[in-house]
Amino acid sequence: MSSVARITTITARSDTSFEDAIRVGLERASATLRNVKGAWVKEQEVNLEDGKISAWQVVLEVTFVLE
Amino acid sequence: MSSVARITTITARSDTSFEDAIRVGLERASATLRNVKGAWVKEQEVNLEDGKISAWQVVLEVTFVLE
Amino acid sequence: MSSVARITTITARSDTSFEDAIRVGLERASATLRNVKGAWVKEQEVNLEDGKISAWQVVLEVTFVLE
Amino acid sequence: MSSVARITTITARSDTSFEDAIRVGLERASATLRNVKGAWVKEQEVNLEDGKISAWQVVLEVTFVLE
Amino acid sequence: MSSVARITTITARSDTSFEDAIRVGLERASATLRNVKGAWVKEQEVNLEDGKISAWQVVLEVTFVLE
Amino acid sequence: MSSVARITTITARSDTSFEDAIRVGLERASATLRNVKGAWVKEQEVNLEDGKISAWQVVLEVTFVLE
Amino acid sequence: MSSVARITTITARSDTSFEDAIRVGLERASATLRNVKGAWVKEQEVNLEDGKISAWQVVLEVTFVLE
Amino acid sequence: MSSVARITTITARSDTSFEDAIRVGLERASATLRNVKGAWVKEQEVNLEDGKISAWQVVLEVTFVLE
Amino acid sequence: MSSVARITTITARSDTSFEDAIRVGLERASATLRNVKGAWVKEQEVNLEDGKISAWQVVLEVTFVLE
Amino acid sequence: MSSVARITTITARSDTSFEDAIRVGLERASATLRNVKGAWVKEQEVNLEDGKISAWQVVLEVTFVLE
Amino acid sequence: MSSVARITTITARSDTSFEDAIRVGLERASATLRNVKGAWVKEQEVNLEDGKISAWQVVLEVTFVLE
Amino acid sequence: MSSVARITTITARSDTSFEDAIRVGLERASATLRNVKGAWVKEQEVNLEDGKISAWQVVLEVTFVLE
Repeated sequence: MSSVARITTITARSDTSFEDAIRVGLERASATLRNVKGAWVKEQEVNLEDGKISAWQVVLEVTFVLE
Repeated sequence: MSSVARITTITARSDTSFEDAIRVGLERASATLRNVKGAWVKEQEVNLEDGKISAWQVVLEVTFVLE
Repeated sequence: MSSVARITTITARSDTSFEDAIRVGLERASATLRNVKGAWVKEQEVNLEDGKISAWQVVLEVTFVLE
Repeated sequence: MSSVARITTITARSDTSFEDAIRVGLERASATLRNVKGAWVKEQEVNLEDGKISAWQVVLEVTFVLE
Repeated sequence: MSSVARITTITARSDTSFEDAIRVGLERASATLRNVKGAWVKEQEVNLEDGKISAWQVVLEVTFVLE
Repeated sequence: MSSVARITTITARSDTSFEDAIRVGLERASATLRNVKGAWVKEQEVNLEDGKISAWQVVLEVTFVLE
Repeated sequence: MSSVARITTITARSDTSFEDAIRVGLERASATLRNVKGAWVKEQEVNLEDGKISAWQVVLEVTFVLE
Repeated sequence: MSSVARITTITARSDTSFEDAIRVGLERASATLRNVKGAWVKEQEVNLEDGKISAWQVVLEVTFVLE
Repeated sequence: MSSVARITTITARSDTSFEDAIRVGLERASATLRNVKGAWVKEQEVNLEDGKISAWQVVLEVTFVLE
Repeated sequence: MSSVARITTITARSDTSFEDAIRVGLERASATLRNVKGAWVKEQEVNLEDGKISAWQVVLEVTFVLE
Repeated sequence: MSSVARITTITARSDTSFEDAIRVGLERASATLRNVKGAWVKEQEVNLEDGKISAWQVVLEVTFVLE
Repeated sequence: MSSVARITTITARSDTSFEDAIRVGLERASATLRNVKGAWVKEQEVNLEDGKISAWQVVLEVTFVLE
């Protein structure tokens, strides 16, 4: 049984947490791609405004199986 | 005073969060190994089922001191 | 419009979570540095005492713009 | 003469060998993409079931020229 | 305010310089993708013919925001 | 449903091919470890004697689930 | 004859080219640091606005000798 | 007993398989170098023509002992 | 002739030098493991107390052949 | 059709630009080696004297085909 | 109990050995920084003059705790 | 003033220490190459026989200036 999947890289931002940023990214990916199986977290970055954390950002490698 | 420690690599899964997966992994390690000192998080991965996050997985390098 | 920023590396510890450790680190950085823009999370480590997680530690690369 | 190509990452599985997995992946890529020029093998993984190798899996970076 | 962007990898060639190869690549990307924000230069390669530099080639990771 | 697995690194040699070296390594691992799930090929090396390939060697990261 | 130098990481931007961004960065470094000996180019990034390159950015590891 | 060896990097191509490409490369190396001891496989690439694999290419780090 | 070896990672400390730390680590490994063949030095770290070097620490990847 | 090429690493300096340093390096390589096909730019470094850039230096991996 | 430390990168040279270069570097660091805890050895380089080793150089990542 | 240097990779063994292995390697290099400027230590490995360290081995990247 052979199968082929694609890995696409996305960045996703949230103003509350890394875990929320991961959800945001995967929701957006699942909206346009079928068979999304999972994702590796490759990078984690926070942005600041006036000394406060304004955004939590992740880079995800998303895997989805090609029919 | 010389001392020797071992580093062993484990993966741990949880259906709630990365932090819970880390706890699960270290609890399991501490159940069989003495003097577990800590762990580095080497990888973070999420799995999806039907577009929803079904598992949060981490790869940990666990350090424990040899008597 | 040219601009120059510096990247400095810090480690920060908290006894509750990685996210809190990130806040602790950035607060300390913003106390002594102006124009802190953000930070990349380069490493994540947990320490154990008697089988329980006693500290969550991160290594951050903090960016701040030079006037 | 300027030219631009895209690099896309796929994973491919076969139950016989890595080389067959590479063929499977490139055949699937050539079915949907034009001007596929080649691929780098980035990762090689085997899966086991009951102690026997059940699948040979590769991660490929596939290059195809954009018209 | 959450937002998601995609990162796609391209190679671009020019017969005059790396900077021209970068322009060529980004022009081609902007022709088919909306909201191209920027790119990281991941690799730089030159090709020779009869001892003379015949092509300057770059590998770019291009970021574009998904609506 | 939480689960924990261990990753152990082995090297395996064969005098016929890399694929045979992988089989040799996983057979040896499955002989002493339960629930061996798979392995990543981390390194591939050949040894020569009198100009002929005398051994094909691989470094494998083997994953096995802890009960 | 022993000597000690420090390596500090800066990012510098220019709207014309990478080479100009390097000059901008080193000028700023030399304005505040003595004995700046040189720099390694660690990263190169371009930003776009409306499909045109608006900034060329470099990350430099700058070496300066401590008296 | 001190000994010194050199490591040289070669690429080798074959139209049949990676293993044949390794043989081709090591035969060529052994034709001009004495005491070739072995080689690490650093990269594996395939080239395509009209959707078919036309070449299997490897990058090898070859070790040979200096007399 | 096929053979399989295991690679285990240890850290070892000494208050005199890196070379002594290596000896300490390998002595401890040889006390519990048979057929220890050698080790790669992966990391070297020194600890300070009151401005003086109090410990020399190495991370070793130790290879031992499985019977 | 099998072919074998060698990859040799050189550093080249110029007092005007990275691109000129690349030309200098490849000219020198082509003077002693036949069939030089191209080069990857692996490192880029600038040297300073009295706050001014005195040299642009590159590390190149040069590929040349063996007859 | 939260705490923040800084990691700064220095190079240090000695004409006798790597271990002496490490001492030189840490002495210089401790002269200007308080609470220096330790250092990772990131690089080791030797310089030659007339075929003799004239300098032993190390790159150190030095950690010091911020009050 | 442009200049070109070559970087060649060697391994060297000694039965007493890493520093002696470095001397052995550089002496051998200087015997056949002119203008040897220095070397980076890329790897450090020890071999054991009957639980005792029998060899200290280094991989060196040696730089020599081409006339």
